Formats: sequence, C-alpha cells, structure tokens
Amino acid sequence: MKPLQGITVIDLTRVLAGPYCTMILKDLGANVIKVETPLTGDDSRHFGPFVDDAQKKSAYFMSINCGKKSLTVNLKNEKGKKILEDLIQKSDVVVENYRPGTFEKLGFSTERIKQLNPEIIYASASGFGHSGPDSKKAAYDMIIQGLSGLMSITGTEEGEQVRVGSSISDIVTGMYTAIGILAALCRRGKTGEGARVDVAMLDSTVSVLENAIARYQTSGNIPRPLGSRHPSITPFEAFKTQDSEVIIAAGNDKLFALTCNVIGKPELIHDPRFCTNGNRTENAHTLSDHINDALREQPTCHWLEKLTEAGVPCAKVNTTADLFEYEQIQARHMLIPVEGEENFRVAGNPVKFPGEWDDTQRGKPPELGEHNEDVLTNLLNYSEEAIAELYANNVVSK
Amino acid sequence: MKPLQGITVIDLTRVLAGPYCTMILKDLGANVIKVETPLTGDDSRHFGPFVDDAQKKSAYFMSINCGKKSLTVNLKNEKGKKILEDLIQKSDVVVENYRPGTFEKLGFSTERIKQLNPEIIYASASGFGHSGPDSKKAAYDMIIQGLSGLMSITGTEEGEQVRVGSSISDIVTGMYTAIGILAALCRRGKTGEGARVDVAMLDSTVSVLENAIARYQTSGNIPRPLGSRHPSITPFEAFKTQDSEVIIAAGNDKLFALTCNVIGKPELIHDPRFCTNGNRTENAHTLSDHINDALREQPTCHWLEKLTEAGVPCAKVNTTADLFEYEQIQARHMLIPVEGEENFRVAGNPVKFPGEWDDTQRGKPPELGEHNEDVLTNLLNYSEEAIAELYANNVVSK
Repeated sequence: MKPLQGITVIDLTRVLAGPYCTMILKDLGANVIKVETPLTGDDSRHFGPFVDDAQKKSAYFMSINCGKKSLTVNLKNEKGKKILEDLIQKSDVVVENYRPGTFEKLGFSTERIKQLNPEIIYASASGFGHSGPDSKKAAYDMIIQGLSGLMSITGTEEGEQVRVGSSISDIVTGMYTAIGILAALCRRGKTGEGARVDVAMLDSTVSVLENAIARYQTSGNIPRPLGSRHPSITPFEAFKTQDSEVIIAAGNDKLFALTCNVIGKPELIHDPRFCTNGNRTENAHTLSDHINDALREQPTCHWLEKLTEAGVPCAKVNTTADLFEYEQIQARHMLIPVEGEENFRVAGNPVKFPGEWDDTQRGKPPELGEHNEDVLTNLLNYSEEAIAELYANNVVSK
Repeated sequence: MKPLQGITVIDLTRVLAGPYCTMILKDLGANVIKVETPLTGDDSRHFGPFVDDAQKKSAYFMSINCGKKSLTVNLKNEKGKKILEDLIQKSDVVVENYRPGTFEKLGFSTERIKQLNPEIIYASASGFGHSGPDSKKAAYDMIIQGLSGLMSITGTEEGEQVRVGSSISDIVTGMYTAIGILAALCRRGKTGEGARVDVAMLDSTVSVLENAIARYQTSGNIPRPLGSRHPSITPFEAFKTQDSEVIIAAGNDKLFALTCNVIGKPELIHDPRFCTNGNRTENAHTLSDHINDALREQPTCHWLEKLTEAGVPCAKVNTTADLFEYEQIQARHMLIPVEGEENFRVAGNPVKFPGEWDDTQRGKPPELGEHNEDVLTNLLNYSEEAIAELYANNVVSK
C-alpha cells in the first residue's frame, strides 16, 4: 500500500507551485482530484512545448499532472459551489493557489471550509502568504527569485545576476506545501484535528538561501554571485578544459594535494598562498588561473579519469540531453515514460520506498473533465439525473 | 500541539542535506536527537562563518540545527552501538546521510534496523541513492548541480554556466527526505507499518529541472542558460535601469501593452515582431534592447512605481541585506533571532500553521553532547552508574 492510499485531495491549483505539490501527494498514493474551470482548465494545459503540436497536448502540463483526476466545475455558479462543498465534506485535503482573498470571495473562507469539514486540511500556496502588507500582490517565480535574494547570489563573478534555470521558487513552494499537508495528516491520524496550512513563495525561497544570511551578518559584506565557485571552500568549482568543463570539489587539504598532483602542479601544494582552505579561498582567482592553465591541455574525459583514479570528487556538467544516457538516472527510474505517451519521458518520483511499488511509468495525464462522472458518481453519490442536469446547466462540462 | 509532537527522530546526519531534513521535522514539532561523534561532532560545527570568532560558534551550524538535542556516541565502540540500538527501539524515525554501505558496515543494515524496531521509519539521504552503478560514489552539492543538468540551464546567454548561489541540491534532498518520512509516518499512524525511505541528491535535483526535460524532447534543442530570461514567456526578465535592475513579468499581451505604455514606447504594442508572446520570445533580444533603452533613463524606484501603478508585475532584485529591511519578511517571521544569540538571525519556518504557535524565535543550537544525560536518562532509562561508566570508557563524552 502506498503511504497516502485512501487520502483524497481536492486540488484547485494551477500552473506550477500547487500542481507540483499535488504531484508529490499523488506519487505517494493520494487520490488527487483537479477541480478545473470548464472549457479552459488549468492554464498550463495551453502552455508549450507540446508533445503533439496538432493536438496541442502540453508537455508542460503532462510533466506535473500525471495520474491525477480532472473534474470540471464552474465555481461562479451556485450549483458549482455546492459541488465543491460536497467535495470538501468527502475529502481529506483541499489545496489552492489563488491570490489571497479570491477563494474567500468565491464563498470559501477558512471558517466556511472548517465548518463544512472540521477535520479537513486546508492548504494555500501563494506568492507572499495570507498575512502581511504584500499578501495580495501578484507573484511569479521570476519576481520571487528577485525579491527573495536568491538572484542576488546567482550569476557571474563579474556581476551579471541570473535566474535559476528552473522555476525553483515555485517548486520549493510546492514541496513545502506538501510538507505542511503531510505533517497535518500525521497529526490528524492521532487526534482527528484539521489544520490550516499557509505557504508563501517568498518565505520558501528565503528558507533555501542557505548560508548567505549567515555570511552577511557575520561579515557585513553583502553576498554576491560567484559564478560556479563556492563562497568558502576552494577549489570547489567548474574549470575549463580543452573541450568543455570539469567540476572539481576538493574540500580539504588532502584532496587539494591530490588535485595538484593530478594536474602536474605539485609545487602548488606547499605554496603559502594555497596551503590552507582559508588561503585558497582568499587567493581563489590566482589559484583558478593555475588550475585552468593545466586543465586546458586535455579534454574533460581525460581529467575525469585521472581525478577519479586519484580519489578527487569530480564531475562533468551534464546537459539535459546527457541525462537520457546516464545509467544512474536509468537505474533509479528518474526519467520515465508517461502512460499513453510512451515516447515522452518526465522526471520520476525521487522519494523512493525501495521494493514497495513499481515506479517505472507515470500515470496518464487527465483530459479536461475526464473524471466528471467518476467523481460525481463514486465520491459524491450524485444520481444520473442530477449529473445530467449539471451538464445541461453548464455547471460541469467537457 | 505542533503536528509532530511526540515523534522522536534519531538524527545521524551531518553538514547540510540531512540536517536540513531534520530541521524541518524539528520545526513541525518532532523531538530531534542528533547523534554526534564525541569531541568533533557534526563537521559543520567547524565551518565558518562564525558568530563569535573567539568562541568559534559556527553560524553555518546554527542556521540549521536550532532546537535539536545533541548526544555524543562513539559508534565504533560496541557499547556505543548498543546505545544506538536502544535509541532505535525507542524512536519513530532514524535518518542518516552516510555514503551508502557505511552505516551497514557499522552494524546497521536495513534488516537489522527493522529487526530492532519493525515500526521504525529508516530514511537515508545520499548523493546517488542506495541502488544503481554510482551508488557508492562521493557527492557534494556542486557535483550534483553539474551532473543533474541544473547547471547547464543556469547562467548567462553568452554561455557561462554557474551554480545556483545556495546549495540547492542538498536542500531539495533534505526536503524530499522529510516528505518521505512524513508520508511514511501518515501510513504508520493507520497501519503500524514501518518504512525504508531512500532519497538521492541526483534524483531530487533532476526532479526540480521543471520543463527543461520537456523542451529538449519536444524540440530536440538542448536547453541552455538564458541569463534572467524565461525560456518561453517574454518579457519576463530583469532589465538594467539607470541605477540597478528591475524585473518585469509581463506574461500576456495585455501586460505587455501596459509595459509599453509605461516605458513610453506604445509603438511596440502593434509591432509585428512583438504582437504575440511567440513573436516576442522569437525576437527577445531585439525587444530587450528597446526596453533597456527606455529603462536606462530612470532609476529602479521610478519604474517600480510606474509599473505597479499600471498593474504590471515587477520587482527589484533584493540583496541579502535588503531582506533585513523587508516588511513582508518581518510580518511573516522569516528572519528570526536564535535563542541565546539574539543579535543573529536565521531563516524562519516557511510552513505556517497560522495562529497555532509562536514562530518568532528559533531554539538554542545544542552544544556538543549537551543532552547526553537527558537522552540517556529520560529516553533510554539508563542508570547513573551506567552513564558514568559510558563516560569513563569514552563511549559518550563532552
């Protein structure tokens, strides 16, 4: 039995942070019901790239919605609101990522939700959270990468600040929302108590800044981007080789000495500029020049072999394409086909419960409204007539 | 009651990924007991920066270990192993981030742990996971940022690849390990079943690549760094102003038109090169040049005011220092003092259960071995004599 089997999640989220959260819950066994706007659905159904350009099947949507159910409900209609009320009464978790205030305006305040189901876990993922002066501002991943400080420490040593190449603020927010929901479910299992969970993209991204906050306070210096270099361990970065780059992670004196030997520069080991990690970090650029001079003589594969032989942690910089040829990724089922789209692969579930279940394929991404009858009949026990009436009034539709 | 109150976690982790996981569990109410090597303890106790240079109090350690307990045990000693066996029998979760094989060599195979406590949740965080050909390789955050593909999409348009400025591979691994543990605890609450959880840095980082994997498969083009630019939405990036930068996130035609009006270039709205998002993304550089020309005339604060007035999502790029002046961060308790070090602030807990508990301060980071007597007496019921003997034999120490 997957750990969340028997847990029903009503998922009112769209695009990335929220759907990423419910993907995690789905992967762990929950029954996730996406409640979508009739006719259009989750915005990301219309985002490129498309797996099949003719049919406009969004690869973006597919990457994070596999195996969920889709129910279309017009929440601006009273009968649609009634469906959501019924869903809340029959489920364990409700998740939304509306801008704070919007869900309440639709008639679903925290109090109302709690009244409908005192044991419910009601989670929100939003840009700035449900409190504070900026609560109702619009947020996108790029905005939060900038406001959180993350962008100010990511980029080149020359000072070009860049975004993290994936929408990391959205993603860590989805992860923290899942963490809040899971913790609340643990407690509910013991006490029957429901919970309100409020996770913000800004808060989540600040919490992954790591030691930049500590460095600023202890030194008074504002942390800046350092290219591929680590702020306090040296050499711990990517160096240019004859044909590409090699990452060397020599975190202590012994590994530094081994590195010097491999690159044919043993004289650096006892050079007073480089003899401790502190010295090396202080003289990082001079040291990089020495190492780069040596590494440029040979291609990356040569250095990977020699460094590995010597026991120095090292790696190449894989492209997305390289991942498809990477044995360890295959062995761990981390790029797996989608049911019904066997030539298209998405990231697998990184939370492994070894031997417990097959994780070599992801379930089918739902068509818009695909599970209307299933959910209305089997979860809510609506009659055929009632369902026909909802369709006739465009409360639900396909 | 915090959601994980009553849950005891035996924490054998060091440095970042593992301690980040147990910080999350601690923040949600678990009783986290760090089992550390006598005399030296968690390596990160010795990492700079230091809050107090004379006393060598590591700010790094403090950032992720507040409120945990510390017990020193020599696990190479038979009596030390016995202590860990007793701990496993009395706890709910055991987490380690040894290189795969090491914990087993110490006498703690998955089978042995399960035998000691069939209901235990045993979680491992490692570089490559506990299966696959690379399982036993050493990994560091920098190595995994390179191998996972994340570095290949982060950097400048000119092709300089950079690391994410924080150790994001370690951090998402800690988060996924917490997710696995919490899901297993939910199940155990229902069925009494224990679980084995195996989370890898490589897997975790691949799972946060977002749509790069989809883009590669649908287009055949290998995704590359794009500076601050979004791969498929334009304009959605940071632009230079007179004094710094401003992020503009104009995700649709309406927001693009508003942006053009604000910057005094309404002629761009109907320019055939820019009239749809697809056109704008195709001609992103030309468009950037136009926007940059306009923005360079005024400072960031001017543009933030005008864009906000017009309803265009925008932001400045905050430094770590700016966060300390940011009202929303204060309102959400996201930079909070540490007990006993009131002038030093660390990131707060981003998982909010509003109104349930005070999250305005973090607990004290433990001294090495600070809770030896507490744990040995209160959790394990060892006698005073037994404890004295353990000290005398250097099995535990301070």
